[in-house]
Amino acid sequence: MSQTRIKLGMVGGGATAFIGAVHRIAMRMDDRFELVAGALDVDAERGRAFAATLGIAPDRAYATYQDLIDKEALRPDRVDAVVIVTPNFLHFPIAKAALEAGFDVICEKPMTTTLEDAEALAALVESTGHRFFLTHTYTGYPMVRQAREMIAAGEIGRLRRVEVEYLQDWLAAPVENTGAEGAVWRTDPKRAGAGGAIGDVGTHAWNLAAFVSGEEPTHLLAELSTLVEGRRVDDDAAILLRYASGAKGSILASQVLPGNGNNVSFRIYGDKAGLEWWQEKPEELWFTRLGEPRQMIRRNGAGATNSAIAGSRVPAAHPEGYLEAFANLYRDAADILSGKAASTVVPSALDGVSGSKFVEACLKSNAAGNTWTEVG
Amino acid sequence: MSQTRIKLGMVGGGATAFIGAVHRIAMRMDDRFELVAGALDVDAERGRAFAATLGIAPDRAYATYQDLIDKEALRPDRVDAVVIVTPNFLHFPIAKAALEAGFDVICEKPMTTTLEDAEALAALVESTGHRFFLTHTYTGYPMVRQAREMIAAGEIGRLRRVEVEYLQDWLAAPVENTGAEGAVWRTDPKRAGAGGAIGDVGTHAWNLAAFVSGEEPTHLLAELSTLVEGRRVDDDAAILLRYASGAKGSILASQVLPGNGNNVSFRIYGDKAGLEWWQEKPEELWFTRLGEPRQMIRRNGAGATNSAIAGSRVPAAHPEGYLEAFANLYRDAADILSGKAASTVVPSALDGVSGSKFVEACLKSNAAGNTWTEVG
Amino acid sequence: MSQTRIKLGMVGGGATAFIGAVHRIAMRMDDRFELVAGALDVDAERGRAFAATLGIAPDRAYATYQDLIDKEALRPDRVDAVVIVTPNFLHFPIAKAALEAGFDVICEKPMTTTLEDAEALAALVESTGHRFFLTHTYTGYPMVRQAREMIAAGEIGRLRRVEVEYLQDWLAAPVENTGAEGAVWRTDPKRAGAGGAIGDVGTHAWNLAAFVSGEEPTHLLAELSTLVEGRRVDDDAAILLRYASGAKGSILASQVLPGNGNNVSFRIYGDKAGLEWWQEKPEELWFTRLGEPRQMIRRNGAGATNSAIAGSRVPAAHPEGYLEAFANLYRDAADILSGKAASTVVPSALDGVSGSKFVEACLKSNAAGNTWTEVG
Amino acid sequence: MSQTRIKLGMVGGGATAFIGAVHRIAMRMDDRFELVAGALDVDAERGRAFAATLGIAPDRAYATYQDLIDKEALRPDRVDAVVIVTPNFLHFPIAKAALEAGFDVICEKPMTTTLEDAEALAALVESTGHRFFLTHTYTGYPMVRQAREMIAAGEIGRLRRVEVEYLQDWLAAPVENTGAEGAVWRTDPKRAGAGGAIGDVGTHAWNLAAFVSGEEPTHLLAELSTLVEGRRVDDDAAILLRYASGAKGSILASQVLPGNGNNVSFRIYGDKAGLEWWQEKPEELWFTRLGEPRQMIRRNGAGATNSAIAGSRVPAAHPEGYLEAFANLYRDAADILSGKAASTVVPSALDGVSGSKFVEACLKSNAAGNTWTEVG
Repeated sequence: MSQTRIKLGMVGGGATAFIGAVHRIAMRMDDRFELVAGALDVDAERGRAFAATLGIAPDRAYATYQDLIDKEALRPDRVDAVVIVTPNFLHFPIAKAALEAGFDVICEKPMTTTLEDAEALAALVESTGHRFFLTHTYTGYPMVRQAREMIAAGEIGRLRRVEVEYLQDWLAAPVENTGAEGAVWRTDPKRAGAGGAIGDVGTHAWNLAAFVSGEEPTHLLAELSTLVEGRRVDDDAAILLRYASGAKGSILASQVLPGNGNNVSFRIYGDKAGLEWWQEKPEELWFTRLGEPRQMIRRNGAGATNSAIAGSRVPAAHPEGYLEAFANLYRDAADILSGKAASTVVPSALDGVSGSKFVEACLKSNAAGNTWTEVG
Repeated sequence: MSQTRIKLGMVGGGATAFIGAVHRIAMRMDDRFELVAGALDVDAERGRAFAATLGIAPDRAYATYQDLIDKEALRPDRVDAVVIVTPNFLHFPIAKAALEAGFDVICEKPMTTTLEDAEALAALVESTGHRFFLTHTYTGYPMVRQAREMIAAGEIGRLRRVEVEYLQDWLAAPVENTGAEGAVWRTDPKRAGAGGAIGDVGTHAWNLAAFVSGEEPTHLLAELSTLVEGRRVDDDAAILLRYASGAKGSILASQVLPGNGNNVSFRIYGDKAGLEWWQEKPEELWFTRLGEPRQMIRRNGAGATNSAIAGSRVPAAHPEGYLEAFANLYRDAADILSGKAASTVVPSALDGVSGSKFVEACLKSNAAGNTWTEVG
Repeated sequence: MSQTRIKLGMVGGGATAFIGAVHRIAMRMDDRFELVAGALDVDAERGRAFAATLGIAPDRAYATYQDLIDKEALRPDRVDAVVIVTPNFLHFPIAKAALEAGFDVICEKPMTTTLEDAEALAALVESTGHRFFLTHTYTGYPMVRQAREMIAAGEIGRLRRVEVEYLQDWLAAPVENTGAEGAVWRTDPKRAGAGGAIGDVGTHAWNLAAFVSGEEPTHLLAELSTLVEGRRVDDDAAILLRYASGAKGSILASQVLPGNGNNVSFRIYGDKAGLEWWQEKPEELWFTRLGEPRQMIRRNGAGATNSAIAGSRVPAAHPEGYLEAFANLYRDAADILSGKAASTVVPSALDGVSGSKFVEACLKSNAAGNTWTEVG
Repeated sequence: MSQTRIKLGMVGGGATAFIGAVHRIAMRMDDRFELVAGALDVDAERGRAFAATLGIAPDRAYATYQDLIDKEALRPDRVDAVVIVTPNFLHFPIAKAALEAGFDVICEKPMTTTLEDAEALAALVESTGHRFFLTHTYTGYPMVRQAREMIAAGEIGRLRRVEVEYLQDWLAAPVENTGAEGAVWRTDPKRAGAGGAIGDVGTHAWNLAAFVSGEEPTHLLAELSTLVEGRRVDDDAAILLRYASGAKGSILASQVLPGNGNNVSFRIYGDKAGLEWWQEKPEELWFTRLGEPRQMIRRNGAGATNSAIAGSRVPAAHPEGYLEAFANLYRDAADILSGKAASTVVPSALDGVSGSKFVEACLKSNAAGNTWTEVG
């Protein structure tokens, strides 16, 4: 096929892993990548069997990530980048090894489980000059990008309030006790990091708030709760935000509220207008100018801006969704890795550091009795 | 007309006042009241002229509230109750005078501008044995009452999180500087009370949270902001809540967010289910049982409970709204005043005290740097 | 009370009748009417007892409509107008008698059960010079009035297509067999008229289409169905419309589709824009300009026109509904009856004739095998 | 890569064609296909250049479809199937040639531009035993499939009414006069077929109605309109439907109504319940049981059935859309072509014949003055 496809090796993402499958669809969507290597499973045999179904050659189906990195480094047709879709605690060692071996990296969030690791990794990205892409999905949605663009263009005026939520219910019952996939490691501080909901969904909300508003809070005040008895990490968090500009905000991140699937939303208001978006209806961006009727802007339709149009594959009113948003991150990565673009809006290692600072500040604020805490 | 109509005298509610007109429509809706006396305006002449248009006899169109109370007290056909719809700072002296003169009282919220006054008033209600109704409108909506009933019946299980918002935009610009009706006194601490948004809309949110959930937070942590420069009161507030049961909550009250009209909502979750309601679509109550499809219950339709049906005047799908909700408060008051019911769910002086405690706790928490503060 | 209240006598509207109660609330809403006489029930005793609860003096609680008309005509304080809220087949004789005795009339729809009667009544209105108001509720909604105003002002351009629906489910089962209130007479051709769904809800749709679009179809093609076995009238109708201007349209009227409460809607499109409205969310009017984002205009909010503002009692975002819409019809009637206005948009006897022509054309088209039939 | 990938050759779908790009994304989504050959453009040079960007080898980038078919037929590694994404009038000759040369076919709708051709093609599919897939996109949506499954399982009871709409506005102005892409050939009867809106979007609605309800109307009555002056085909159609079972229905198909993007919807009611779906919010299926609250079922969430789950790639509340629906058609085709499944729900040549019968019946009914016409 096309000569210009970028070659990828994947670590994690075995047969039953949700997010690995998402990455593979996303990388195929625009035909700019080729998955040619993998260390897909902690069970090496199972990983190899699964690799075969993906069309990965047997000699590039590796037993461990170290193996993948070592052996790929020696091949003339070596992979261009390593995709990391393992449980959280492995992100750091794998990314570090990959960068040191000369590979670019595409990594699931959170980047690391500690701030120390995050900063080390960002420094390594800086010193090696390699590329690092952090797949904060929601930044790939066209209408999220349009909101960012509109705010940067001054459409809402001076920032007043940033409200971001990420609400789920899949941990509403103590499902980790019955071995539910994903729930076991995500509620284990050793594998997921000290933050539960704040790490798993709170970092998305934090990233989304900054991505869209163009400002990062300087201080936060967090109350972390464990609403399901016996759970080892927080599963619910309410966080107040303060911006240097005087704007205020809050994040609500919870995984235990019945009826919420992936209820990610932002409502961001300035003194002239507001912008409101819900991930479960991602094609609609509400633009609320003071003193005018509410407008519903649709992706690629009337009122769509350049960034929304660029992030579209089909016309307005033929809905795109989560996979297309994810594919936009891969498309941006492809533009950079192929030299077609110098920079894009895809989150980087600096966003990973910011996420770690957020988690650390939340933990610190909460431990201190919910007091204002400087971020970073 | 009907022998059983309850006779009312109104203080405030002149020709251009919004809320006075609402009270008059609400009291007429079910034909249980008759407005026979009034001190409707600080400008006595204007008040008398307006009274005439309402069919109030000239000798019962009074110049001052004191006049109304003194003279009505002497009439054999004296009013049964006094309705207070003045700016906030007058609620207390008028209510006090009315109660002392032997009248029942129907009063706009907030009940008073200080906790001290609120407690004095509640004590007076107790000692006099007279009735006191506080018109927290939102408690009159049938689907709000149904939510309360469902939670009391255990439908959502053990309470987890209470999210209540009251968002507006009518103070998004410094309209008080141009003399906009209502804005001038509402942003004047002397006439509105020390709380701005927390008093005007925050108390509604606080009341609604308790009304529906059946629990009152023991502690809160409030950040009050003045987002419009030069304003003399808070116009935006983010408040965290803690319940004795371990449940958490938050209130967002703001009057400066473009695109929000009267965006009052609650989302209340337990371990079994959630209930969600938005005032701007008041006929719909979302019931979200864990592991089941979301259900949309409509007033007086399938799934409606007794309290929703009792609060309905027309069948489901012929929408009722704000005025009918308000009229439900009056209907309940009529039931009590006529002896038809011993008690109803209409807020009382105790709710007024609770609201004052809320405002005071918010001010205290904010002054202390946003720390947890006991309520009451 | 006020000297200027208009005195009404009501025929029909007994203790258990739905629409009579609605009329009484609507007439009280703005305090412009006084209900002083009534022949409320076919059971005279029951009617008198109910009249007493409404504050109607015993000597003005009549046994029959003829009695009411005869005796009121002789009183110096006679009623100004007669309100007719009986089953359909009685509208004509009562209205005729009232007009002939010199009373103005406020009448429920459909005006009559035959076109012949409708034309006779309209002629009588013309010859007597008395006022006749036909309470097509939906024309009272502020956003319906705004849509009419916008179309008249050319906002949607040249008319293309008019889609109106009125869907219910209360006759989805054969409830008339179990004596369900309202269902028995409404499915009896002798009492309801030959049209079932077309008469009961189709006439509303027909009226709404004309009211908003400003044009009446010249031809229609109707398919009437009886989807519930054994029912004696149509309960479902699909109707195609043609306008002299070349525009097209359709009406869907059905009372047997599960999940529809009072799903009344219009979607009207011209070559420049469209307007869309659903009665179950009556506060929102969607304005869809070609090549621009969809706008949601709210009653009394930004973008509201004069007619919507005039039809409002409370600010935008404090929802009004069905009863307020109904009260707008009464308010308009009061403006005319009191001489305050020469004309309003309230439907008249001519609309009643138009509705009868619609029903007759539907029956004719259906009988002829669903062929195009001239209306009127 | 994977040994089991199915090899495809594409005809049409050049650099600027919308639907060709959609097919390519859809075929890549699940990595079951490989595009290895193409005759992508009427301009052979341009087609070859574009083929190179898709990774198609130069010797398999053909100048014409006949070339592709002739030469691929001789290769040992010949394509398994031919994908046809040309303007409508070419579907038939290409499909015919491909089938005769022994290839399976994946074809855009409408299958042909005449009923005669459709029947010939269906006969050829039958006689050759090759596979023919007609990409009626909307049948790929998981919630559409769930609706079909629920109706087949008796969930709505006996069918009463089928309402399907497909409304657009991209032809609201005479854009064909300014050479707008796609509009020129779609409004040219020679290239699009005699039906305009009925062929382009009406056939989708017809197919969707039958797919979901499980019944095909026996008769229809159609009114075709050309609402944009000077257009050479119909751009708006209202069609009444009759089913053998006694059920009724209607289709509204229009391309000239401002504010409608791809407003495809069905509302299907039986005597027990209804199902309602809108393509612009494809994740939600409303299930309306008589006498119960409305339920909103989400793809892959609570209440999702087997067919919806099977058609899902990500969990509920991470929205999927148009491309995933399209990819479901390709996935089903892959299951059949690889022998994994004997049959699926993907539309076949018989659906193409049905669509042609629909168009022909519409034209006939319209020509006869909008009379009931037997379908097929």
